[in-house]
Amino acid sequence: MKNRIVIGADIGGTNTALGLVTERGEILTEVKFSTKAFEKPQGLVKAVSEEIKCRLDEIGAENALCGIGLGAPNGNIYSGMVENAPNLRWPENVDLRTMFSDALNVPAVLTNDANAAAIGEMIYGGAKGMKNFVVITIGTGLGSGIVVNGDLLYGHSGFAGEMGHTIAVRDGRLCTCGRRGCLEAYVSIRGIRQTTVEVLSGRKAPSVLRDMPLDKLNPRTVAIAAQEGDDLAQEIFDYTGEILGRHLADTVAYLSPEAIFFYGGVSSAGDVLLGPARRALDANVLGIFQGRTTLAPSALQGRSAAILGAAALAWKTFCLPKKGV
Amino acid sequence: MKNRIVIGADIGGTNTALGLVTERGEILTEVKFSTKAFEKPQGLVKAVSEEIKCRLDEIGAENALCGIGLGAPNGNIYSGMVENAPNLRWPENVDLRTMFSDALNVPAVLTNDANAAAIGEMIYGGAKGMKNFVVITIGTGLGSGIVVNGDLLYGHSGFAGEMGHTIAVRDGRLCTCGRRGCLEAYVSIRGIRQTTVEVLSGRKAPSVLRDMPLDKLNPRTVAIAAQEGDDLAQEIFDYTGEILGRHLADTVAYLSPEAIFFYGGVSSAGDVLLGPARRALDANVLGIFQGRTTLAPSALQGRSAAILGAAALAWKTFCLPKKGV
Repeated sequence: MKNRIVIGADIGGTNTALGLVTERGEILTEVKFSTKAFEKPQGLVKAVSEEIKCRLDEIGAENALCGIGLGAPNGNIYSGMVENAPNLRWPENVDLRTMFSDALNVPAVLTNDANAAAIGEMIYGGAKGMKNFVVITIGTGLGSGIVVNGDLLYGHSGFAGEMGHTIAVRDGRLCTCGRRGCLEAYVSIRGIRQTTVEVLSGRKAPSVLRDMPLDKLNPRTVAIAAQEGDDLAQEIFDYTGEILGRHLADTVAYLSPEAIFFYGGVSSAGDVLLGPARRALDANVLGIFQGRTTLAPSALQGRSAAILGAAALAWKTFCLPKKGV
Repeated sequence: MKNRIVIGADIGGTNTALGLVTERGEILTEVKFSTKAFEKPQGLVKAVSEEIKCRLDEIGAENALCGIGLGAPNGNIYSGMVENAPNLRWPENVDLRTMFSDALNVPAVLTNDANAAAIGEMIYGGAKGMKNFVVITIGTGLGSGIVVNGDLLYGHSGFAGEMGHTIAVRDGRLCTCGRRGCLEAYVSIRGIRQTTVEVLSGRKAPSVLRDMPLDKLNPRTVAIAAQEGDDLAQEIFDYTGEILGRHLADTVAYLSPEAIFFYGGVSSAGDVLLGPARRALDANVLGIFQGRTTLAPSALQGRSAAILGAAALAWKTFCLPKKGV
């Protein structure tokens, strides 16, 4: 039983990334799939499992696997199911925990992808030693993992921490959840794209963004334009950061975290987004919280925070109590 | 050391109530002062301490006192201070923990008054056995005590759970904190009084409220009028409950509590307020949380939840580890 490993999986609306992870947090090998390429979750589980078995063979670790940690949108730690995930075109309830556990013949544990990222940040990233912090993942949607007194906040239902679906603009933009004005409708790839289209069509000022085909307009290209001095591109991030920052004033009043970390595609915009967000937080936060919460990019690059977090969850759940490994 | 007792104190913006409390949660004797009657906190501490000494004498328990639990607005568990409390006309930082400890010569512990109410609800009230719930106290202001995984949420600063100062109406009413649109500016004695004045002056419909002198218009009289069928009075609570309920949809998305309890003067309005709040929560909450959070009045009547909660905190902090009492 030496050199045991777990799988850490980050199942996102766009991509699914997995790693074979040691107890020390080394990712031995990483696998990536397009989530959207599979119509049904069964197809994804089958493809992932076969690839994992090949990789285990390659590194001679067929018998070393002791568990799977899964992070997925609307993943419920209590039921093991992905329930009504708005960013996955899957049936209402998908028992992903059982499907992966059966396919690979080891126990599995499932949580929200953002919760997995928060565990990763706590154990391997910028939140080491912190007892109260939040990780916000910004990608297709906006997720959040909240740590309180050193533990994840799951709440009574297992779904606590759905910050993407708290209301940033009352009666605002239509969200994928069917309601209006959710934070996710503004601060996400989709939200920033919509803001880009609105700003470009509503204003006459010149911008390099006007020469780009619509499918090239995304947070990354807009952020690059802003960093290169394009005024309209900066305006798009000022608007997004302002909505984010003033909303975080409420988050701080609820939770008073030591830090809020930003993770995922949009977060790579860095200070183009976090600068305006910090200013709006400072301008809107209640006096007693002033200057007490840091906004920072995740200390873990790429998608590895969620992989490492899901792996850490698996270690904690299945492997660590058995000492003497 | 038999029959030890603690003091549980609930220091509110309007009144201060204290009890001598046994380990089993019996309140042996209760003391009440008008907080506002004292210009400085020193005056309040002196009056309270002298009264407490008299009461201890009366029941022959001079040597039985082993600690003081204090619940006060903006009370910080970490520093022991009341910091910048908007509803108390006190200096910026008041070291209430030291002042009471010195005056009565026993150790003291201080927290937010709403946190104390939440501990009271957990140990003696409707939240027995619950691991995730919220207590909202509605009086002069609006406070909240949040319990996550069975423990109070203090956050990094010690001030977490300031729901009264999360934004219910962007750019809305001016709040005592100097910002605009806080939940407290709508859902509190002050907020409901302002709504009453606005509704009565903006509408021509008849109402028994029009015959009342301004200083008799308060949530209690408006609630009685609503219960007796007065349409404008009901409209005032419909408006208040709608703002409360749709705001709680965000609270549920953050915390997913099993229940939210309402405590304090305004809460006694009961279903006149909680009915519209429940409807607005149902209409606004994200699908995965639908029907998963109960709104209920506190199971502890009067001010005793906060007294019992503060006492329970004192027991837990100073007295309980020493077994064999």
